Amino acid sequence: MRIVVLGGGFGGMYTARALRRRLGPEVEVELINAENYFVFQPLLPEVGAGSITPAHAVSPLRFILKGVTVRKAVVDSVDFARKAVIVFQGIQRRPTEVPYDHLVIALGQGTDFSRMPGLEEHALKMKTLEDARRLRIHVIEQLEHAQVTNLPDTKRGALTFTVIGAGFSGVETVGEMKELIDRSLPFYPKISPDEVRVKLVEFAPRILGEMPQELADYAAKHLQKHGIELMLETGVKSCTHRQLVTNKDEVIDTRTIVATIGNAPLPVVLRMGLPLQHGRLKVERNLRVEGREDVWALGDCALIPMKEGASERNDFAPPTAQFAVREADRVARNIAAVLGGRAPEPFAYRSRGALASLGARRGVADLMGFKLKGFPAWIVWRAYYLALLPGLGTKVRVMLNWTLDMLGARSLVQLRSYRKPPMRYVYFRAGDRIYNEGDRSDGFYTVISGALEMDRTDPETGETLTRRLGPGDHFGERLILGATRRRTTVRAVEDSKVLVMNRQEFLMLAEGFEAFRDYFRPYMEKHGVELPGAGSDKDG
Amino acid sequence: MRIVVLGGGFGGMYTARALRRRLGPEVEVELINAENYFVFQPLLPEVGAGSITPAHAVSPLRFILKGVTVRKAVVDSVDFARKAVIVFQGIQRRPTEVPYDHLVIALGQGTDFSRMPGLEEHALKMKTLEDARRLRIHVIEQLEHAQVTNLPDTKRGALTFTVIGAGFSGVETVGEMKELIDRSLPFYPKISPDEVRVKLVEFAPRILGEMPQELADYAAKHLQKHGIELMLETGVKSCTHRQLVTNKDEVIDTRTIVATIGNAPLPVVLRMGLPLQHGRLKVERNLRVEGREDVWALGDCALIPMKEGASERNDFAPPTAQFAVREADRVARNIAAVLGGRAPEPFAYRSRGALASLGARRGVADLMGFKLKGFPAWIVWRAYYLALLPGLGTKVRVMLNWTLDMLGARSLVQLRSYRKPPMRYVYFRAGDRIYNEGDRSDGFYTVISGALEMDRTDPETGETLTRRLGPGDHFGERLILGATRRRTTVRAVEDSKVLVMNRQEFLMLAEGFEAFRDYFRPYMEKHGVELPGAGSDKDG
Repeated sequence: MRIVVLGGGFGGMYTARALRRRLGPEVEVELINAENYFVFQPLLPEVGAGSITPAHAVSPLRFILKGVTVRKAVVDSVDFARKAVIVFQGIQRRPTEVPYDHLVIALGQGTDFSRMPGLEEHALKMKTLEDARRLRIHVIEQLEHAQVTNLPDTKRGALTFTVIGAGFSGVETVGEMKELIDRSLPFYPKISPDEVRVKLVEFAPRILGEMPQELADYAAKHLQKHGIELMLETGVKSCTHRQLVTNKDEVIDTRTIVATIGNAPLPVVLRMGLPLQHGRLKVERNLRVEGREDVWALGDCALIPMKEGASERNDFAPPTAQFAVREADRVARNIAAVLGGRAPEPFAYRSRGALASLGARRGVADLMGFKLKGFPAWIVWRAYYLALLPGLGTKVRVMLNWTLDMLGARSLVQLRSYRKPPMRYVYFRAGDRIYNEGDRSDGFYTVISGALEMDRTDPETGETLTRRLGPGDHFGERLILGATRRRTTVRAVEDSKVLVMNRQEFLMLAEGFEAFRDYFRPYMEKHGVELPGAGSDKDG
Repeated sequence: MRIVVLGGGFGGMYTARALRRRLGPEVEVELINAENYFVFQPLLPEVGAGSITPAHAVSPLRFILKGVTVRKAVVDSVDFARKAVIVFQGIQRRPTEVPYDHLVIALGQGTDFSRMPGLEEHALKMKTLEDARRLRIHVIEQLEHAQVTNLPDTKRGALTFTVIGAGFSGVETVGEMKELIDRSLPFYPKISPDEVRVKLVEFAPRILGEMPQELADYAAKHLQKHGIELMLETGVKSCTHRQLVTNKDEVIDTRTIVATIGNAPLPVVLRMGLPLQHGRLKVERNLRVEGREDVWALGDCALIPMKEGASERNDFAPPTAQFAVREADRVARNIAAVLGGRAPEPFAYRSRGALASLGARRGVADLMGFKLKGFPAWIVWRAYYLALLPGLGTKVRVMLNWTLDMLGARSLVQLRSYRKPPMRYVYFRAGDRIYNEGDRSDGFYTVISGALEMDRTDPETGETLTRRLGPGDHFGERLILGATRRRTTVRAVEDSKVLVMNRQEFLMLAEGFEAFRDYFRPYMEKHGVELPGAGSDKDG
């Protein structure tokens, strides 16, 4: 008998644990997760702000799941007829089949920004540990940059930080981020505190929609007092590599956009072909996927009715860690029941409340209707999550992190500037400069949509020649001639989407791929340049 | 008066510190470094083995250099005539000029693997914090993979770990890496300890050439006792993505190659056009660059004569942290002297000894001729480096890391599988499979050199059709048709170099770049596929 759990978040990890405890050694429990660790999601904003180092906000699944087979692999699909999960593991390119008798789906949710052009390409997320780590690096990078730049526009963009979505994740992220900035500024003498702008953008008329009004009001006041601007009833229309445009057509110059919105089903869940509702798996009250005897689902990827005929949002279990842990227990009990020939029971749980930290040692807490604000709420917040952390080692590490953070200055180490992907789409708004004459030649550009203009100064007459570029046109190929500085200025005349390829990759392709080289050959011959590469081997 | 220091390692950081202490407030001291932190190089092997988290092995330069202007920027070149350093900072693409009155060059060394084909592409290094972090992730990834694979060849490759070079860095890396593996194995039930092979490859007939014979012998015995195989008098000829070939034509199946050899001048130092000897800047005994009044050099990038008429290796200062710290003090004194109208003095220092940790709480130490081995040497090693760490905060953090590491299991968290660059060169040896029929279609390949064969089974006759591929040929373009699995098997028939482009980047390029699309259009039309993209916008 084999039970396979997909996903190692709160839902999956606690299900595997409970199954192992409830079932005898004749039942094998296997957990499949893309990472080999459990991420403590509620601490991600603290990782993003640097009060906890990334390695300390997570626990290796193999440590906390004794007796469970842990498989680090990416789930590709499920063959329900043959009762097998198809995975790709490690560097292997061959699929592996993992058979199951019962399957538990706890894969969580992904994001979908497709209605907001540019957001996928230019926004940071707060879903994974890597996201949080990257946010911290990115924020420090902006400070470093603001410290040295002489261009006021560039400085303003670098010092404007935007968080989209004012749910728990957005509020905690913006609060923690502001604290990181405030504590770092003393080390950046050329940045004045009043140059820093931090904005929280929320579509609803208030923040923390899941919390009682009184606590949300307190939270809003706290954030404002600490210099965070709340932009309520404001949606996001689009963004570019340096601007965010709201649904009121306000344009914010910002190099930092953190999106905590846009939950959507993961592609792998969609591929399963199971019944969905509101983008989540339809399950019965006992957490069994509708129409399946041997497939269960819980956590953020499942829509779990808390009563018969559920239809309102409040009739379903909310997608929180608190509920996922309880759902895990119910799934494990129900699978044990079914294996023992008994009937599974419906999931029932009443929320014990909600907690949010606001940064600067303040928080809000609603505990069974009992409301806490400020420092006491923040202490409860820390204590609660410390208690929930799996494994003594992790608890000790997080506690030490917190202690060190309170004692000293927060580390400004920018562990690695996040290198932009070598090939990527970039959005520009009408009027944006793509590059200026004299800039470093760092890439090759192809227009996907929109329109651009290129200005070139004629070296003899001194006249400016302008050329219009549209979809399919490209520029920046002087790289192939060994160019290091731009001779032209390019700007967008319409909102445009451009494919950018870094210098190194462009040159590799020009060396390696014949069609590419053939295409540029006339251009190179015109300039008297010959490119070494596979072609010349062939001729020789 | 402005003094600019290039490089924030031991040499540069300590120079800036000493200058700040010695000179009055009328002298501005600026340090330029690509990262905003000082890396404590001797601890990198411990970061690589996970006993210290990356953020704790470094100190933010802004914390430890009070009163010094810290500029996070990449040095592009130096204009000695105009006395200005040209840098690129942050995301800015315009160069910035930083003027100086005196310039101190302490940029360290780079690596050059050009004599060993494949090493640059397939070996890990141990130069930067990122290198160390990546090594740890890579080692855990191999264990995860060995745990799940069913293929004996793959498992052997995953469990063979090779370190090239048995100097301090190589010996400490191999020792620490073995300890990480040994302590992790209990959590990987499908890996037997006797399946793990760890090899240290050294061209010389002994390890730790800088240490007395007696200590090197002890170290060699210790490593062997802990299951590390020493391959002495062995050079590296080439390597591929899964093999290392020695100069004796022995072929080692290994997925892990750590290269601690191949020191070479950095391109930026070469571009300066200053006099070089043995790939290092020629300086006078007083650390002034030959022929320059206002340029000084120290640390690994400089060749520093310790006596008149120096010619033997031992006549020059060795490239160690111990010497760099002393050289820094001398440079600062000499600049102060010159500014005060006095003559600079020659650098003089006698080594206080050498230390190496061997993993498993053992080390070797040679302290002014007094030799220590085993646990006492290891304690001295830790105490010495703890004392040398700049800043109390860092000292406390490193001590806590060590304490936690001794108390509990070492974390197995594989923070992020290191994603291969989307476009890269890969080396194959004759006989290697590039991919098999049925594998996941993960990339597009172009042959740079060598020869490959592609086998395809005719679906009607069942016959195997073989096609030979040479330089300029490409394969894997079925991606463009939406293919997800390979229909052919490709193998190298000669040693070959191939350019690989990942699926996603290939599709972006096919969408965005017209020449690319035009090239593949006949192929797509033959298969009845139309590709969306800029071209269709244009037609419409």
